[in-house]
Amino acid sequence: MNRDDCVALDERDPLAVHRRAFDLPSDVIYLDGNSLGALPRTTSARVREVIEREWGEGLIRSWNTAHWTDLPRRVGAKIARLVGAQPHEVICTDSTSINLFKVLASALRLQASRPQVSLSERRVILSERGNFPTDLYVAQGLASLLDHGHELKLVEPGEVLQAIDGRTAVVMLTHVNFRTGAMHDLAGVTRRAHEAGALTVWDLAHSAGAVPVALNATSADFAVGCGYKYLNGGPGAPAFLFAATRHLSALADDTFAQPLSGWFGHRTPFEFVPDYRPAPSIDRYAVGTPSIIGLAALDAGVDTILAAGIGPLREKSVALTELFIRLVEQHCSGHGLELVSPRDPQRRGSQVCYSHEHAYPVVQALIARGVIGDFREPDILRFGLAPLYIGHADVWDAVVTLRDVLASAEWQRPEFRLKGPVT
Amino acid sequence: MNRDDCVALDERDPLAVHRRAFDLPSDVIYLDGNSLGALPRTTSARVREVIEREWGEGLIRSWNTAHWTDLPRRVGAKIARLVGAQPHEVICTDSTSINLFKVLASALRLQASRPQVSLSERRVILSERGNFPTDLYVAQGLASLLDHGHELKLVEPGEVLQAIDGRTAVVMLTHVNFRTGAMHDLAGVTRRAHEAGALTVWDLAHSAGAVPVALNATSADFAVGCGYKYLNGGPGAPAFLFAATRHLSALADDTFAQPLSGWFGHRTPFEFVPDYRPAPSIDRYAVGTPSIIGLAALDAGVDTILAAGIGPLREKSVALTELFIRLVEQHCSGHGLELVSPRDPQRRGSQVCYSHEHAYPVVQALIARGVIGDFREPDILRFGLAPLYIGHADVWDAVVTLRDVLASAEWQRPEFRLKGPVT
Repeated sequence: MNRDDCVALDERDPLAVHRRAFDLPSDVIYLDGNSLGALPRTTSARVREVIEREWGEGLIRSWNTAHWTDLPRRVGAKIARLVGAQPHEVICTDSTSINLFKVLASALRLQASRPQVSLSERRVILSERGNFPTDLYVAQGLASLLDHGHELKLVEPGEVLQAIDGRTAVVMLTHVNFRTGAMHDLAGVTRRAHEAGALTVWDLAHSAGAVPVALNATSADFAVGCGYKYLNGGPGAPAFLFAATRHLSALADDTFAQPLSGWFGHRTPFEFVPDYRPAPSIDRYAVGTPSIIGLAALDAGVDTILAAGIGPLREKSVALTELFIRLVEQHCSGHGLELVSPRDPQRRGSQVCYSHEHAYPVVQALIARGVIGDFREPDILRFGLAPLYIGHADVWDAVVTLRDVLASAEWQRPEFRLKGPVT
Repeated sequence: MNRDDCVALDERDPLAVHRRAFDLPSDVIYLDGNSLGALPRTTSARVREVIEREWGEGLIRSWNTAHWTDLPRRVGAKIARLVGAQPHEVICTDSTSINLFKVLASALRLQASRPQVSLSERRVILSERGNFPTDLYVAQGLASLLDHGHELKLVEPGEVLQAIDGRTAVVMLTHVNFRTGAMHDLAGVTRRAHEAGALTVWDLAHSAGAVPVALNATSADFAVGCGYKYLNGGPGAPAFLFAATRHLSALADDTFAQPLSGWFGHRTPFEFVPDYRPAPSIDRYAVGTPSIIGLAALDAGVDTILAAGIGPLREKSVALTELFIRLVEQHCSGHGLELVSPRDPQRRGSQVCYSHEHAYPVVQALIARGVIGDFREPDILRFGLAPLYIGHADVWDAVVTLRDVLASAEWQRPEFRLKGPVT
């Protein structure tokens, strides 16, 4: 395998053309699309249209004339196609953390409402110790409010299936782990949870736009996900939220099943009545006034994924991560890198991670050379391979740069040891 | 008083020059800046810079290099100047509804932590029946989670002071009423609340940028406010949140005093530890990743208010609302309009409201003639007079148009009776 082979693969790659849909600096190999997706070429014009024409000229009228009111559902319906959901089951709103609070509360309320289960018996929220911390924090915050002795039980990824039992109210997992790229068996975990009478809450932050997800086909209950990673929605883009149709129906009359009860989740927000009555649809998961500019940017980002198709994207993603691992084996052995991501591509998302004793300065040295990956505590180098705009030759160049940085001890330069607030 | 007098007032108006800072359609008199503020001329370029340079070129690095991480606090510090707070007491994040949930939870936690007060005694959240509904909905949603028998007690505006007693945990009011423009005595209510051992939560949605607010000078406890009204932040702009320094200190060690515990509120978010430890600062009220594009637009909007100064803006606002009321008396008597806003400008925000039997079609007929105000249930015509971009001659033209619409029975045309989803 040499660089020409990689260039040849790019030439045969039917997705290579999508690279042109992005504005990426020419001096950068961007392997951090799993932290912040790249800028689509269409976004700036779309946002300008929203600002200058819809807001500037249309003013308040644009809630109707530019259909701002529907935008959270319209973008949600597009994301539904990426995660195997029906259009009316997904809404774009708020942040992943806040959406998680809503669906976790809904799941606990559903459990509490089931006549055969006493609340005191099902008090365990089961998750993974290495889950993205905000998910754990949100569960802790919600439990602190409920005051019913809910317990957040954290286990290792391989222990999840056997830890699900009659005390489990909710299994709350991130489908693809942020630190390792390891992917849970969404179907298998959901099946086991349902057998045990538990419900599932999936965080699809590192899945949506990278890995096909079959929420309906696996009977998943609730899910949330991030707009600014593979969906290319821009920094702090609105997040999304999924609730299965059967739960939307079951909860339709439960006023505070979603306790962040704001006016945009009301059945008739513009009647301005003093009592909350939730919308009998996914709209109940809306809270305040939707972020229209952010939603427009997210809409443009989601379109880039839909244009390529999630099936072909996954195929290329697997090819790129396989290539990355093979090239590291070929070029970087003996330098102390240890693969942290699963070797089996079926159990891996769209990223490849290694542990290394000096992971932090190595990542900084790579960034200085234009290869942007990131560091994750305690000792992880993380490389996200967004198949929309990363090619096989990029992978070659990144691995060769990694080899050069490790071989030259360039990473030992003092400036690479200083930690900024965010890496 | 005639139109020339109004033009002469505009010619002498030191704030008239600020009108040029906005892109408003030439065929519109925009009296709805209290619903959605106008577009500042600087916003589009500022957002383009964030999208194309900071996101497109800087990519993930911009969290550090473009200081995205600080943006919620930097914009918050600007808003602090408008509401009489210290810079470190305000943060811009999420929506008004969600921020209200956080500070209301904090206030109840503070009450519960006071040794002299048993939780069972102070269970009343006192508010106004005509408060903006989302505030009531959020209180209802939070109470449903707490399950401690909290009661949301709703009274008429004039009954608030006498309703505050030893059972009152929190007085939660909107400073300027969305429907009537009536302004509460923030200092007097806060004083009475504190005398009775209660805490205050103020919604400044219709105050910030229109009415000077003295949060620190009045010893206010908590406040929230809206970014897309007088602050001109754009549709669905991030909201703001204020917590008094003494409460930030008192709550510093109370892990879930703000129960929407997301990673951006963590003391060390990038250490990715599994247990939530809140930041010992206003940062604890951050939840998920901040909406950078929305914050940039809000920043540009807040600058338009700071450039004029809140003192001069209030002075002009009073002059405009006084003029509006006088001209309606002069031109529209006998048409069934009844002033709903307080006649005393000291008790009124920056809007003037009338009830009318046919308020809805009258507002639609006005909009068709380019005078954009809005209708509020059940029978209110609402006119917001944003002093940054509204002049005295605009007020004249608006009132004369109102007179013409009422006199001609133009509002009786069938198309003006159809209600859209949002008005």
